[in-house]
Amino acid sequence: MIRVAIVGYGNIGKYSVEAVKAAPDMELAGIVRRAGSEPVHGIKTVSDIAELGKVDVALLCTPTRSVEETALPLLAQGIHTVDSFDIHDGIVALRRSLGEQARKHNAVAVISAGWDPGTDSVLRTLMLAMAPKGITYTNFGPGMSMGHSVVARSKAGVKDALSLTIPTGSGVHRRMVYVVLEEGAAYADVEKAIKSDSYFCHDDTHVLQVSDIDSLRDMGHGVLMERKGVSGSTQNQLFKFEMRINNPALTAQVMVSSARAATRLQPGCYTMPEIAPIDYLPGDDREAWIAKLV
Amino acid sequence: MIRVAIVGYGNIGKYSVEAVKAAPDMELAGIVRRAGSEPVHGIKTVSDIAELGKVDVALLCTPTRSVEETALPLLAQGIHTVDSFDIHDGIVALRRSLGEQARKHNAVAVISAGWDPGTDSVLRTLMLAMAPKGITYTNFGPGMSMGHSVVARSKAGVKDALSLTIPTGSGVHRRMVYVVLEEGAAYADVEKAIKSDSYFCHDDTHVLQVSDIDSLRDMGHGVLMERKGVSGSTQNQLFKFEMRINNPALTAQVMVSSARAATRLQPGCYTMPEIAPIDYLPGDDREAWIAKLV
Repeated sequence: MIRVAIVGYGNIGKYSVEAVKAAPDMELAGIVRRAGSEPVHGIKTVSDIAELGKVDVALLCTPTRSVEETALPLLAQGIHTVDSFDIHDGIVALRRSLGEQARKHNAVAVISAGWDPGTDSVLRTLMLAMAPKGITYTNFGPGMSMGHSVVARSKAGVKDALSLTIPTGSGVHRRMVYVVLEEGAAYADVEKAIKSDSYFCHDDTHVLQVSDIDSLRDMGHGVLMERKGVSGSTQNQLFKFEMRINNPALTAQVMVSSARAATRLQPGCYTMPEIAPIDYLPGDDREAWIAKLV
Repeated sequence: MIRVAIVGYGNIGKYSVEAVKAAPDMELAGIVRRAGSEPVHGIKTVSDIAELGKVDVALLCTPTRSVEETALPLLAQGIHTVDSFDIHDGIVALRRSLGEQARKHNAVAVISAGWDPGTDSVLRTLMLAMAPKGITYTNFGPGMSMGHSVVARSKAGVKDALSLTIPTGSGVHRRMVYVVLEEGAAYADVEKAIKSDSYFCHDDTHVLQVSDIDSLRDMGHGVLMERKGVSGSTQNQLFKFEMRINNPALTAQVMVSSARAATRLQPGCYTMPEIAPIDYLPGDDREAWIAKLV
C-alpha cells in the first residue's frame, strides 16, 4: 500500500481524502495542517508530517504560491510530492528547483498535476504529436476558477471573492470576479489590485462588488480544447476534447493518480506530459491494462 | 537526424513518406518493398533494408498480420521498429514477442502506434486516471476501416473490398462490407468467410456485393470517445474526445512521432500508454515544450 499524506485541507484537500480512500492501492496516513487548526473528524490530523510515520507521497493541497516552500523540505526527507501548481509561467522554474532537490534526496516530485496544467497538458502534447502543424485552442468554463478566486481573495480589502471564467472562443476568456469588500475598503483599490495581478492581467477582467457570493458558488467547470492541424502534409485534421467536471474532485483525482506514478518514476521532477500514462493506473499487472485499454 | 526506412508502400507507407519529410529531425533512408516491386519516384527503393545504410527506425507499413515476421529480423539487427498492429486481441502476445527480441538486441519496438489502437489507447488510459470508475465508449466512424478492408480483400473470391464502420452508439458498430467478386466466386462463401473472421465476427456485419467500389472510397474517418465516471467519490464527471481525420495520414503521423520516441526509450517493446507523451515531440529542449504545453 502507498501511504499518502494530505498537506492542507481546503477544497482540494477534502476531495483528495475521498480520492485516496477510493484508491485500491493507497492508505491515508493523515492530514497535515497548520498548528492550531481544527482536527479533521476520523482522520489523524497533525502539524508536522513526521508524526504520521512512514509517508510515501505527500499531496500538496496548499495555495499554489506556497507549493515550492512546502515541497522542498518534504523532498529533503525523501517524501515524494505531488502538487497542482497552476501558474503556467512559473512551471519551468519550479521544475528546476524541485528537480534538483528531488534528485539530491532520491525522491520524485510531480508538479502541475491537475487538469490545466495537467491532463489538458497531456492532451495538448498528444494532439501536437498527431498533427504537428496547426493551432490548439483551450477554452475554459464557464466555471469558477479556484486558483483565481484564491488570488482575488488574497488582496487587501477583500473579504470574499469568486472568479468565474467565461470562454469567448479561440482560447480567449473573460474573467468575472465577484468581490465582497471588507468594511472601509475602496472598490477602486481592490479592482486595481486584482486587474494588475499576473493571474488576471492577460484577460478581459471585470471586478463586480456584491454583498454575498455564496449563491454564486458552483464547483462545476469545463474545458473545450480544439485543434485543427496537419498530419504529414494532410490538412484539416480536426481534434476536440471536451469535459464537464467537478473541478476540485478532478484535480484531487489527478493528484492521487499522479501520486501512484511518483512511486514508479526515477528521482526527479516531472510534469504530466513527461509521464507514461499507464503509470497512473493501479496494480502491477501491466499486461492486463494493455489488454483492456490498448 | 533520425534515419527512417519505410517498409511497405500501401496507403500508410505513402502517407509515412510525407510525414517523415515534414519532420524537422528525420531523414528518409528509403523504402523497402518486395523484390520486383516498382521503385518509388525520387526515393531509394530496395528489397533488402541493408542496402539503405544506417537505419535508426523502420516504420512497418505492411499488413497487420505480417508485422511480427517483419519486425523480428529488423530488431535482430538493432533497428527500432514502429507498427500500427491493430488486432486488439493480439497486442499482448506481440508485445512479449517483440519485447524479448528487442531487449536481446538493444532495440526498441513501439507497437500498435496508430490511432486505435494508439492515441485512443492513451486517451482511454488518461480518462481512467481522471475518473477510475465508470464506462468509456469508443465510437468509430462513419469511415472506411483500412484494416477491415484489407482482411475482406484477402478472402478467396474477393477481387476488391471496402469495409465501412458505422457507429450505432454506446461503442456498438455496424460494418458494411462492399465486395466486388472474382469471376465465378460464390457470394455466400465470401459472406461466410468475412463474417466468421475475427475482425468481423463480433460486430453486426453486412456484406454487400457491388460491381465497383471506387466511388465509395473516402479516407475520412472519425472517433467519438465518451466517458462518464467517478473522480474520488464525485459522480457524473463527463469526458468526450472527438476527431475527424484522414485515416492513413493520421496513422502515418502517429507512427512517425512514435519513431522519434523509439530513439529515446530503453530497449524493449512499448504500447503508446507506456510512453511519456513528450517523447513524441522533436528537439532536445524539453523545457521549451513544457513552457509551451504544460
